[in-house]
Amino acid sequence: MLGTLLRPDYEKLIRDKDWKKLRAAFDELDAPDLAEIVEDFPLQDSAVIFRILRKERAAELFEYLPLELQTKLVQSLADEQLVKVLNDMAPDDRTRLFEELPPEVTRRALESLSPSELKIARQLLGYPEGSAGRYMTPEYMAVRPDMTAAEALAYIRKHGKHRETLNVIYITDEKGRLVSDLRLATLVMAPPETKVKDIEDRQVVSIPAMTGSEDVVAEFEKWDRVALPVTDSQGILLGIITVDDVLDVAEEEATEDIQKLGGMQALEAPYMDSPFVDMIKKRAGWLAVLFVGEMLTATAMGYFQHEIEKVVVLALFVPLIISSGGNSGSQATSLIIRSLAVRELQGSDWVRVLRREALSGIVLGSILGLIGFLRIVLWPSRVAVYGPHFTGVAIAVALSLVGVVTFGTICGSMLPFLLRRLGLDPATASAPFVATLVDVSGLVIYFTTASIVLKQLFQ
Amino acid sequence: MLGTLLRPDYEKLIRDKDWKKLRAAFDELDAPDLAEIVEDFPLQDSAVIFRILRKERAAELFEYLPLELQTKLVQSLADEQLVKVLNDMAPDDRTRLFEELPPEVTRRALESLSPSELKIARQLLGYPEGSAGRYMTPEYMAVRPDMTAAEALAYIRKHGKHRETLNVIYITDEKGRLVSDLRLATLVMAPPETKVKDIEDRQVVSIPAMTGSEDVVAEFEKWDRVALPVTDSQGILLGIITVDDVLDVAEEEATEDIQKLGGMQALEAPYMDSPFVDMIKKRAGWLAVLFVGEMLTATAMGYFQHEIEKVVVLALFVPLIISSGGNSGSQATSLIIRSLAVRELQGSDWVRVLRREALSGIVLGSILGLIGFLRIVLWPSRVAVYGPHFTGVAIAVALSLVGVVTFGTICGSMLPFLLRRLGLDPATASAPFVATLVDVSGLVIYFTTASIVLKQLFQ
Repeated sequence: MLGTLLRPDYEKLIRDKDWKKLRAAFDELDAPDLAEIVEDFPLQDSAVIFRILRKERAAELFEYLPLELQTKLVQSLADEQLVKVLNDMAPDDRTRLFEELPPEVTRRALESLSPSELKIARQLLGYPEGSAGRYMTPEYMAVRPDMTAAEALAYIRKHGKHRETLNVIYITDEKGRLVSDLRLATLVMAPPETKVKDIEDRQVVSIPAMTGSEDVVAEFEKWDRVALPVTDSQGILLGIITVDDVLDVAEEEATEDIQKLGGMQALEAPYMDSPFVDMIKKRAGWLAVLFVGEMLTATAMGYFQHEIEKVVVLALFVPLIISSGGNSGSQATSLIIRSLAVRELQGSDWVRVLRREALSGIVLGSILGLIGFLRIVLWPSRVAVYGPHFTGVAIAVALSLVGVVTFGTICGSMLPFLLRRLGLDPATASAPFVATLVDVSGLVIYFTTASIVLKQLFQ
Repeated sequence: MLGTLLRPDYEKLIRDKDWKKLRAAFDELDAPDLAEIVEDFPLQDSAVIFRILRKERAAELFEYLPLELQTKLVQSLADEQLVKVLNDMAPDDRTRLFEELPPEVTRRALESLSPSELKIARQLLGYPEGSAGRYMTPEYMAVRPDMTAAEALAYIRKHGKHRETLNVIYITDEKGRLVSDLRLATLVMAPPETKVKDIEDRQVVSIPAMTGSEDVVAEFEKWDRVALPVTDSQGILLGIITVDDVLDVAEEEATEDIQKLGGMQALEAPYMDSPFVDMIKKRAGWLAVLFVGEMLTATAMGYFQHEIEKVVVLALFVPLIISSGGNSGSQATSLIIRSLAVRELQGSDWVRVLRREALSGIVLGSILGLIGFLRIVLWPSRVAVYGPHFTGVAIAVALSLVGVVTFGTICGSMLPFLLRRLGLDPATASAPFVATLVDVSGLVIYFTTASIVLKQLFQ
């Protein structure tokens, strides 16, 4: 997988400005391997490498670079190079690049496109971010229904160069409406004189251009296809989405969900490539919000200061009880968020989930409550540590655990549904968010239970 | 997307035992849509539906059903039906089904295969769970290097039926070693008399059979292919992996990581299909472990009971401080786990990550510390609520926050690396796990800081 030279060798060649040798060494590598090497260099060096490569080679390399490096490189390229690179990119990859560029760079980049490429880019950019329209490529191969299999193959031989994929051939009528599609393999195996419209293949499935990216992934999973056509409301074929892009989209989405679930805004670049200040911003924002929310726990505990003063031992169990609520809420929220994301659950399933989670919460809370109860009443030094009322304390802790875990489980499972109903991303219901919500109510549940169970102590 | 009848209609037909009408209604549906309907029925009804369908239709439907329903159906099928269904499945899907079946059912199922199918199944089952060998299908199309393009196409026309994919054609020598591969499109467009070994296409990339599933996904993302060949150590072509299976694998892995991150064992089936008792087991296990770990907080607080009795106001900030540690740890751990899973970070990157996260922790902790400090000293009723020593309390809280957040961030980011080094799944370092670790140390940091800052009060 690695080239014949090692990274220090390349670095030496760059420092020595031995461009000829460097170019020769790079020419021996495949584009994806070269991309991996270039990624690891500082931006300055990447830009140098980029300039010394032959133009075709540079354009090929460019497609394999991660989006954030592409963005930086575009801003450092001379116009002439930019034209070559952008014109050679697949339209769907180019659209993703444009989405990430600062507006003024996008304008410059768009201007550098050839008129036909510009038309394609504008068309792709017209769809909202994250919609099927953004991921499609117009580089598909379409034939007419009345062509014979032999004619269609001859047509493909003539016009098929530079199409993103020829695995599936689309059949469109004179108005550009999608009639059906055929795998190239089916076409190859069909009797040569059959008209393409009469060749039977799998059912044609198309994706409306405004479909959201999670639904696009779900359609690909449902139908197991390598490409799906994108159509407008009139059934006009606009472009196709290829499965390699869907794999990238699915991975990106899972990454975003995981980062949100961890209680931060999703990063736009891989961890090590994210500028430190950006990363701090994305993390500090949520941390501060959660912190301010969590301050309510101090207020809540302030209300019970009298009880704590009388029975200090109650304070000892505060972390145990609120963390149990937070943990059970975190389990429930991550389960439900993922089920919603992969379409195992629909928004309308909330009632079924509520019933199931309420029951789960009671069972889980009872298990923890029992462990907690036994831990206190069976502890050898129970009187010394928990005072003469240790049974009362144990009962208060056990009952609170049932209440807090049930409440945490219900909160954690219902919050994603609520957020979706409000038009927000369910993944915003992060584990720390749920934990914070549950902490305050957990304290209230705990001290209220304790003050009822240990009534005689507080009088 | 839906059939012409609604679910209640189908239910009525089942209750009325009107098999003829039901079969006719189902015959009008596409297999994936029919699968979605069948999934929603109770198992008993699914088995009935399955039996009334024509055999070919039943086999086709079976492939689109989720794994857990396949498992249950296999156990309820008569032998004759089983033979038909299993023989018609794609080998890679069948392998995944066998993995899930109880051993005695697997034996029965294997016996029902035809001898040639049995050979394939045995071969696929020989590779460890989660390895490339498990996901491959031997239904690829291979041609010899000396065939001309025209001969190869004729060969494909003759032998290409029932292959999983013909998008890529593999070229193997007389010993079965993989020489190269060609897209069908390239073959179609090549001059008919060229030998296939002389047709230029993209570089051939192959996956060793023992490669783990996360690396398989990474290879597909790197090369943007619709299929990749799997080879043994001698370079013999064993089978191919198709991208639609990789998409499923990638989604399953992300789901498992998210569930683990939420602090539970990964479920084997979608949320609603997991039996209640199984789900409780997978959740209660970790919750109980975390609960027992969290009990150390009660012990830790017990050590500081004297301080709490003297300055009860200290107890009020316990939830705020430990949750801040937990939240920052949760952010760090989810960031790092995902970066490791998608290969953005390697195990050897831990030193770079440590430096970055230590700095992040100090910055984030200082931000929260400042907010906390201001909240206490600027509170209108600060003396009434926090006592005359409110400035000391504020300083203790602020300093503890810097310490706890830094510690939480470092723990959260290093734990996944440590787990990987120990040969465990980094995703086990769930948010609740990290929070529990950090809670105990957070309390020690807080009370130690407080006892130093407020020294004169405790004498």
